Amino acid sequence: MNKFPLIGVGITTKGKSGKTLDAHFPFILFQNGENKFDKHFQQCNDLMKNDLMHIENINLLEVDDEEFNNSFSNLETNKIIALCRISEDKPINSIEEAYLKLHLISYKFFLPNSLNLENLFDNLENVAWTNQGPIEVEGIEKEILLAKRTNQSLEIKSVDKFPPLTDYIIPPGVRIADASRVRLGAYLSEGTTVMHEGFVNFNAGTLGAAMIEGRISAGVLVGKNSDLGGGCSTMGTLSGGNNIKISIGKNCLLGANSGLGIPIGDNCIIEAGLYITGGSKVTRFSKNNEPESIVKASQLAGEDNLLFIRNSQSGAIEARINPKSIALNETLHKN
Amino acid sequence: MNKFPLIGVGITTKGKSGKTLDAHFPFILFQNGENKFDKHFQQCNDLMKNDLMHIENINLLEVDDEEFNNSFSNLETNKIIALCRISEDKPINSIEEAYLKLHLISYKFFLPNSLNLENLFDNLENVAWTNQGPIEVEGIEKEILLAKRTNQSLEIKSVDKFPPLTDYIIPPGVRIADASRVRLGAYLSEGTTVMHEGFVNFNAGTLGAAMIEGRISAGVLVGKNSDLGGGCSTMGTLSGGNNIKISIGKNCLLGANSGLGIPIGDNCIIEAGLYITGGSKVTRFSKNNEPESIVKASQLAGEDNLLFIRNSQSGAIEARINPKSIALNETLHKN
Amino acid sequence: MNKFPLIGVGITTKGKSGKTLDAHFPFILFQNGENKFDKHFQQCNDLMKNDLMHIENINLLEVDDEEFNNSFSNLETNKIIALCRISEDKPINSIEEAYLKLHLISYKFFLPNSLNLENLFDNLENVAWTNQGPIEVEGIEKEILLAKRTNQSLEIKSVDKFPPLTDYIIPPGVRIADASRVRLGAYLSEGTTVMHEGFVNFNAGTLGAAMIEGRISAGVLVGKNSDLGGGCSTMGTLSGGNNIKISIGKNCLLGANSGLGIPIGDNCIIEAGLYITGGSKVTRFSKNNEPESIVKASQLAGEDNLLFIRNSQSGAIEARINPKSIALNETLHKN
Repeated sequence: MNKFPLIGVGITTKGKSGKTLDAHFPFILFQNGENKFDKHFQQCNDLMKNDLMHIENINLLEVDDEEFNNSFSNLETNKIIALCRISEDKPINSIEEAYLKLHLISYKFFLPNSLNLENLFDNLENVAWTNQGPIEVEGIEKEILLAKRTNQSLEIKSVDKFPPLTDYIIPPGVRIADASRVRLGAYLSEGTTVMHEGFVNFNAGTLGAAMIEGRISAGVLVGKNSDLGGGCSTMGTLSGGNNIKISIGKNCLLGANSGLGIPIGDNCIIEAGLYITGGSKVTRFSKNNEPESIVKASQLAGEDNLLFIRNSQSGAIEARINPKSIALNETLHKN
Repeated sequence: MNKFPLIGVGITTKGKSGKTLDAHFPFILFQNGENKFDKHFQQCNDLMKNDLMHIENINLLEVDDEEFNNSFSNLETNKIIALCRISEDKPINSIEEAYLKLHLISYKFFLPNSLNLENLFDNLENVAWTNQGPIEVEGIEKEILLAKRTNQSLEIKSVDKFPPLTDYIIPPGVRIADASRVRLGAYLSEGTTVMHEGFVNFNAGTLGAAMIEGRISAGVLVGKNSDLGGGCSTMGTLSGGNNIKISIGKNCLLGANSGLGIPIGDNCIIEAGLYITGGSKVTRFSKNNEPESIVKASQLAGEDNLLFIRNSQSGAIEARINPKSIALNETLHKN
Repeated sequence: MNKFPLIGVGITTKGKSGKTLDAHFPFILFQNGENKFDKHFQQCNDLMKNDLMHIENINLLEVDDEEFNNSFSNLETNKIIALCRISEDKPINSIEEAYLKLHLISYKFFLPNSLNLENLFDNLENVAWTNQGPIEVEGIEKEILLAKRTNQSLEIKSVDKFPPLTDYIIPPGVRIADASRVRLGAYLSEGTTVMHEGFVNFNAGTLGAAMIEGRISAGVLVGKNSDLGGGCSTMGTLSGGNNIKISIGKNCLLGANSGLGIPIGDNCIIEAGLYITGGSKVTRFSKNNEPESIVKASQLAGEDNLLFIRNSQSGAIEARINPKSIALNETLHKN
């Protein structure tokens, strides 16, 4: 699974000040035998044939850093393409590397949580994402006014460090109802539908077909055939004080407006509207459906076949054995 | 109310492969006496006068299928307009018919749940919805790269089977704060405001003025003067295992972050943050405000004047008699 | 803090019928000594030099209404700029004044709830916000069809009385992941991040660095270093029957999918998934962590250091003393 060293070949956008705002890597070059270029290259090579000829003439994965940087400088002069080589999975130290690592996850070459993303936020620029592409935030108000005075169209869609996934990559067999709600760095498997209320952060995603109408926080993984109901929450580790990485097994259902602060196993259900935090005290039921013990939810982390409900009469949170198995709606998922 | 046969007159978009991606029907032609063309025609006829002259010369609703298809072929040669005739309300068997039925609901010629939408998903294409209109998903990554290399603007807004309503139809007297969150096939009555957190799926909507800050799932109907609070959920039947069609009567209030898994009558309130599923056990109160019985929520389906709360001390879900009557904010609703 | 009289200098958009659809005020002119023009002017003055020369020659803040209107008329003939003078903070009586007051809040010259916004809704037009700027709703369907027939791009992004903030103003040091979810009139302080699920209405916002993944309703203020978790709700006063203005102190955490119907002080936490309404009965705990009394949540309004949870075994809502202090994630907040 370790695929380093590798090289991303792509295009960067520079702001008026010369600062790099983003990097798009349609081509990833692995050191894996004959087939040097990834399939993503096959689709697009006509567009960059001349540029790529330069690259093909050098064995980019084997030259030393100095030689690599020289070829990089030459190409940079053409102001056409950018190269980014990652030899080892170390903390990020350039914006190109940040974007390349986000691409590697979204191309599904690496699973979420398998890459070193240290210093990611520090290396990303806060950018105005517009219908004219990324623009520097510094001076943007002048651009807005200028556009109005000259009847140009300038639409600010986002002011953020992360762009939407679909500005760069359209994963095969996927539906994304609102492209602005899936960040570059999301890992979306074939058969995944992200509805309007769904959200997928970077370094997070689905391991198989899934229906996503809730929010997948950074670092969270959702198993095959699972269904995240409308508005449901998976607790993230970036803000708010939670430290446990959440994951969801296969064939799970998170009900609408529910929430999850622990990892769960396969074939689990969280009742609509119920939020399970790690500290919730839960009455655990036996296979004979008898109350057995009271445990912290965090102690149930990773267990299969649990049905979490709040008893609608006593108000207590209960973990019962889940009698149902979940089936995704086949018609909905033929993407 | 049965308005078949009818004909949709419109424009289709074809992808590079020749596949039809969508169909826009600005004109609906009914067999109802003198006034053959609908009002939607009146507004737009100048734009298609020449094309429509051909149509007006044939009595399209009365010719047989062969003759109809012939006139259709001729017009198709002009690559200008598309005709779609529906004689009887059968399962959908073309993309044009799928779009025409969604238009019929959004024009409010037919109520949600009154049309046969069988095979809808099978007949809709998964399409990249862009600032340049619908584009085939196959090959879209090449288009993205080409646009960047040639400084064109290509914005992928959605990859989905359904487009936004407002790409086709702007219902009169309606506000929609985020157009991407109302699908074609939504039924929005005059005086309806869909706020940023609101969502309306196809084959669902409002029967009068309403404030929608929550999610109206496919098949769900909301009565006049009702208010769906921010982030509230109406359980859908497409995924997640629910089979009961939800509806909401007149003058209801679903509190923020609440949820509803049963149909409710008029003048009902669901407390903010409370999710009522069909299986919730509910303490029912008498008119004298005394606890009377414990029933499944599904047994209260369709009843008027109920106030659903979770007792903030005992944790039990209660259905009390609703003492208030709901009034929408008049100023907010003057659209 | 009273900064009237003042003048907004800007550009309006007119619809086909001649109606004014919006007004953009890049320059605000205060009567505060030498430095007549605000910093926003410094950034943009090259663009409007000729127009502004006319303005600089008149002491606009001192001339009487007649003279002011005369200069206004002259400039209007150029169809270039609009002037709007507010001498006193009275109910709004024009669309220009409505937009100017929304600008004044978003420039942070006035705090939310400090301006007279009476008649705001009456003076704002319901407008189709498009990639070609604001367009009149009347006749918009014809524009859509015309654009399709002539291969123009016309994207309807919203049909609403309020435009997004970022069409006019980009507050410094702020991230807004989805620009469509922050309305003009929002007050965003430096260091604020509004994530995809965040929302900020007009006349509402943040008083310092804050992480906003939930909804800030009109009139609601959020203190410095507070964190609104994903999908959380702050009860508004515009619809739904609530009359109490909500505010959130410093260093507070509203958990994901939680909700708040009372103002809270500093250093408070609402547990994920818990909705506190004014009428909730809450068991109040002493500093020794003993249950002390049962009070209505509204009685706890504005208190510091409270931790609100629903007891996961008894189902009762509790207000305990908050032992933690909240720290925002520094890396996330370096905007």
